Amino acid sequence: MEFGITFKGFVSPDRARYLVRQAETSGFSYCWFYDSHILWRECYPAIAMCMEHTKTMRFGPCVTNPKARDWSLAASLWGSLALQSGGRIDVGLGRGDSSVRVMGKKPATIAQMTEFTQKVKAMIRGEEVSYGECPEPVKFPWATGYELPIWIGAYGPKALQAAGEVGDGVILQIGEPELLRWFSQQCFNAGEAAGRDMSNFKVQAAAPAYFGSKEDCIEATKWFPAMVGNHVADIVEKYGADNPDIPSSLTSYIENRRGYDYSKHGQSDNPYLDFITPDIVDSFCVLGTPDDHIAKLQTMQKAGVTQFNIYLDNGDEENIIAQYGKHVIPAING
Amino acid sequence: MEFGITFKGFVSPDRARYLVRQAETSGFSYCWFYDSHILWRECYPAIAMCMEHTKTMRFGPCVTNPKARDWSLAASLWGSLALQSGGRIDVGLGRGDSSVRVMGKKPATIAQMTEFTQKVKAMIRGEEVSYGECPEPVKFPWATGYELPIWIGAYGPKALQAAGEVGDGVILQIGEPELLRWFSQQCFNAGEAAGRDMSNFKVQAAAPAYFGSKEDCIEATKWFPAMVGNHVADIVEKYGADNPDIPSSLTSYIENRRGYDYSKHGQSDNPYLDFITPDIVDSFCVLGTPDDHIAKLQTMQKAGVTQFNIYLDNGDEENIIAQYGKHVIPAING
Amino acid sequence: MEFGITFKGFVSPDRARYLVRQAETSGFSYCWFYDSHILWRECYPAIAMCMEHTKTMRFGPCVTNPKARDWSLAASLWGSLALQSGGRIDVGLGRGDSSVRVMGKKPATIAQMTEFTQKVKAMIRGEEVSYGECPEPVKFPWATGYELPIWIGAYGPKALQAAGEVGDGVILQIGEPELLRWFSQQCFNAGEAAGRDMSNFKVQAAAPAYFGSKEDCIEATKWFPAMVGNHVADIVEKYGADNPDIPSSLTSYIENRRGYDYSKHGQSDNPYLDFITPDIVDSFCVLGTPDDHIAKLQTMQKAGVTQFNIYLDNGDEENIIAQYGKHVIPAING
Amino acid sequence: MEFGITFKGFVSPDRARYLVRQAETSGFSYCWFYDSHILWRECYPAIAMCMEHTKTMRFGPCVTNPKARDWSLAASLWGSLALQSGGRIDVGLGRGDSSVRVMGKKPATIAQMTEFTQKVKAMIRGEEVSYGECPEPVKFPWATGYELPIWIGAYGPKALQAAGEVGDGVILQIGEPELLRWFSQQCFNAGEAAGRDMSNFKVQAAAPAYFGSKEDCIEATKWFPAMVGNHVADIVEKYGADNPDIPSSLTSYIENRRGYDYSKHGQSDNPYLDFITPDIVDSFCVLGTPDDHIAKLQTMQKAGVTQFNIYLDNGDEENIIAQYGKHVIPAING
Repeated sequence: MEFGITFKGFVSPDRARYLVRQAETSGFSYCWFYDSHILWRECYPAIAMCMEHTKTMRFGPCVTNPKARDWSLAASLWGSLALQSGGRIDVGLGRGDSSVRVMGKKPATIAQMTEFTQKVKAMIRGEEVSYGECPEPVKFPWATGYELPIWIGAYGPKALQAAGEVGDGVILQIGEPELLRWFSQQCFNAGEAAGRDMSNFKVQAAAPAYFGSKEDCIEATKWFPAMVGNHVADIVEKYGADNPDIPSSLTSYIENRRGYDYSKHGQSDNPYLDFITPDIVDSFCVLGTPDDHIAKLQTMQKAGVTQFNIYLDNGDEENIIAQYGKHVIPAING
Repeated sequence: MEFGITFKGFVSPDRARYLVRQAETSGFSYCWFYDSHILWRECYPAIAMCMEHTKTMRFGPCVTNPKARDWSLAASLWGSLALQSGGRIDVGLGRGDSSVRVMGKKPATIAQMTEFTQKVKAMIRGEEVSYGECPEPVKFPWATGYELPIWIGAYGPKALQAAGEVGDGVILQIGEPELLRWFSQQCFNAGEAAGRDMSNFKVQAAAPAYFGSKEDCIEATKWFPAMVGNHVADIVEKYGADNPDIPSSLTSYIENRRGYDYSKHGQSDNPYLDFITPDIVDSFCVLGTPDDHIAKLQTMQKAGVTQFNIYLDNGDEENIIAQYGKHVIPAING
Repeated sequence: MEFGITFKGFVSPDRARYLVRQAETSGFSYCWFYDSHILWRECYPAIAMCMEHTKTMRFGPCVTNPKARDWSLAASLWGSLALQSGGRIDVGLGRGDSSVRVMGKKPATIAQMTEFTQKVKAMIRGEEVSYGECPEPVKFPWATGYELPIWIGAYGPKALQAAGEVGDGVILQIGEPELLRWFSQQCFNAGEAAGRDMSNFKVQAAAPAYFGSKEDCIEATKWFPAMVGNHVADIVEKYGADNPDIPSSLTSYIENRRGYDYSKHGQSDNPYLDFITPDIVDSFCVLGTPDDHIAKLQTMQKAGVTQFNIYLDNGDEENIIAQYGKHVIPAING
Repeated sequence: MEFGITFKGFVSPDRARYLVRQAETSGFSYCWFYDSHILWRECYPAIAMCMEHTKTMRFGPCVTNPKARDWSLAASLWGSLALQSGGRIDVGLGRGDSSVRVMGKKPATIAQMTEFTQKVKAMIRGEEVSYGECPEPVKFPWATGYELPIWIGAYGPKALQAAGEVGDGVILQIGEPELLRWFSQQCFNAGEAAGRDMSNFKVQAAAPAYFGSKEDCIEATKWFPAMVGNHVADIVEKYGADNPDIPSSLTSYIENRRGYDYSKHGQSDNPYLDFITPDIVDSFCVLGTPDDHIAKLQTMQKAGVTQFNIYLDNGDEENIIAQYGKHVIPAING
């Protein structure tokens, strides 16, 4: 199983420089960054910086989108990073959330995401490519033939289908094993229907990890189901309500949320928190003692997860990486 | 006098890593990169990389343009580089040449260049800014108040005026002292007319430098007047023909070129080279022995040049930097 | 108050490279290494390595001795490290313990330690120096005038006197405030008696720090009083038994140990642990919550301690450094 | 053919940091340092520093000696450097010249050099070793089994015999192909007589290299035959006068020197220079155009040389390394 970390946008450069080395030394092989240039910072200077302090770690945005920059600029950026790091760049791709909405723009369509995937990979490979807004076709004279791995972030059935059809992997923002199996299976089905060899298709579960008492862990990570929960619930409610794979805790969560929807007017500032029970936080994240982490990761691994990517958004980064290096990664990978 | 180097786009990352350290150790304080993401590579990964291998060196594109990337993206990129380098980023700005033409797009207007300068500086400073294509105003919550120095690349009177009115400096792609004086004076006049304090306004002469016999030097650098010569001649012919500051060698060059324009059809592949005499190459560049370099730089310094930026496009980079470090910079700066 | 860490000899180079950056970023200004080339490794390659990954951190052995290497070799080594780090090397000096005993050699005398201090400082400064085993006087043509700070590790009255007379500081391997005051006062008295200005004399308390429940902390750090306790007790018993500054917990410890001495034959493998009560461990170390650390350090500071040097020998290095950076150092230094 | 550089002792740390990267990028695989801690600086801090700025470059003293430091200290130093560089340390060993003479001590005997080679290799490998001045046998608990390559610097027949019997290679301070063949053959003969497999035995020619007119080259490198010439001549005169392999230029040199010996009283400050003809300088070094270097190195390669180690003592280091990277190394190694 691969292990990754995701840096939040506000990590200081001085901390990032040593945390990325700590992670590499501790057995992590991926370091992802939020790509949201207004709320956080443009992440590629930090990626280029961290590459200079590591030898084998791979990097990438988690996730970027087709609206953030001109496509040839995006391809040149990632191709340049590939060249100067010895091929250590991947890309996580979504339709565009905070980074486009904050500018008053709309997310990309799934068709645009698919086309972006194919054309950016082709440009970096060195092919001549025409794309939407650019009057002339583009070809990089300096291309080295690098094959950029693109992971597609998805929940909904059409995005999962696209991930299976054109992606090198899927990014699933959740730690719940049954949902991970149910979501990723849709990618495999789509890929196989399209005639692809899916044996190397990668499945990333991206979620917070935290050590300590369950109470402390839930307090530190409840922001995560608050952020992704409604989105997941919408999907499950719409497409998977009668699916026997959907865990019962999530079913109750959906029921509670539904009730809540009828009476939301009189709520406090963060009304959603009422419906995010400790069980839901626990199922969405990886929490507790090192042994708890190991047990949950083994279940996730059985559900097909090939990479666990820790959202390092909770403080305590040094300790989380250290615990994974000392206890969790050796137990999982032997 | 400040000294800078400009890396060509194809410099290998391994060479750039040591050349930038060699330059810093040798007394150079600026390292510029071509910003032309299709012909060369996106330069900011290389800038971020080089920042990790230096302590005081300042970096920047020479030159970027307002069409290359969304303005908030550009501002976030440079703001991020400022933050992680301890404030070691400047920007050289033009209207857009190879990097926009190769995509079939048109250069920016001077008005766009002026607006870009003001709005990008404001965004990086932390102000809320509205700009053309963006539906919502943009404000970086992470801004640190950094004041981005923007140097404007110019030859024509309107661009020189803009540089004087809104720029922190001007970039003049030529090594000829009288033209440098004539061009830069237009910036000072415009700035003073606009009520600015011009005492810290910077004047950069960007040109090749080369050591060896005059023949070898001219052979290695004649590409430079070929690249910028017609552009300079157009300007001089249009605005400065009767100006006593214009050196006689350039006047003859303009005459020769004019004759040439009438008969160009039957020429060989590089007909322009016929009109670029050794004298013109010598006047546009800095060539010869260390003492020749020192003498020319003293003249340029008297003409108001505050930075000599060497276009490192001629091979022999290690030796050029070493000669400047051992002989030229100590002689000029004591 | 300055903060330091001491690396144990077995820290892996990959961990040391990031831990030292973490410590610098977290507010530590000293990084010490055990100097015992057979049991651990020769520490100067690691010091030189860590210097390349830091900007302001100071380094040094804690502690070396006059018997480990030829004096001119020692002086050249430290002078070279000073030169290539921009003057970031100090030396901690003792009479020689594990590093000499393991070779079957005897520790240096206090007179040798004093002479070593003076002659090594003089050689690094650039003076011509004659010393014991060397037939010819030695002078470094490359000396830069660096003034090497030498801290003397001491418990006994004669070593404390030497520290006060010729050292730039004293290293006291204990965290107990009253003993720290009593020991360091002897240095100040000796220095003042010798006519030195003692206003910049430095007092380092070197001891383990640990976070968690008192039980966990004591389990993790009881090796420390076991290592230094008999030594401290000998000194207190011999010279300070009737001193009102000696804390009562230590007085009982000495009483217990004395009784123990009469009946030691029938003991288990680690009989000394019977007499090291949790109170003794707690008084020798800095243990508990961040607030406990802050409170103890404030007491130590009032007792005259200018640097707290954490012996990082207990696992959990990343977390200890992180807690100091987030909570303890800001509380102490504002 | 391997290529190496040797840094003189006075190279500034800032220059060494980039020169070693330049050399690695240019195809050099060894970087040697003078080991003479009084005249120059202790070289191991610089070696550890340079290791942090390179990935594959190997390092070592050229040459150290058995008298410079306690043998367990030397072994711990080199074992530590091996550990933190991923096994990138070799040792060049001689009897001790400037570094022992300047202290008024005598060089080691060849027997001591042989014993040092065997015992230091054993200690680093992890064996328990007893040696001269150390009362107790020494064993490094942290040893990793690293096999330290030791190259022996030699001219005389007994030292060459020792190199063949116990060394991993020989260091010959001369660039003259016939002498290189004659000297190295003595190593092979001795090794084979001792029953060793000599197929991997390495032969290093260490000499200056310089580019430019022959006059400039000879002016810049004549210090080298002045330094090593009498030594070489003594050996040739004593053991090889009637050997048909000895080149005629050297024979005349020996004759001239002999005549000179009779009349030396009335000479100027550097009388030896009278007998070092341009031919001798040219034969001892590698001089001229890139093509001249290539031709000479091909002859040296045919004479059995496996590494050419450039003494970088002549200024112009950046240019020499660059010329080798651009022209010479590609021509020799394809």
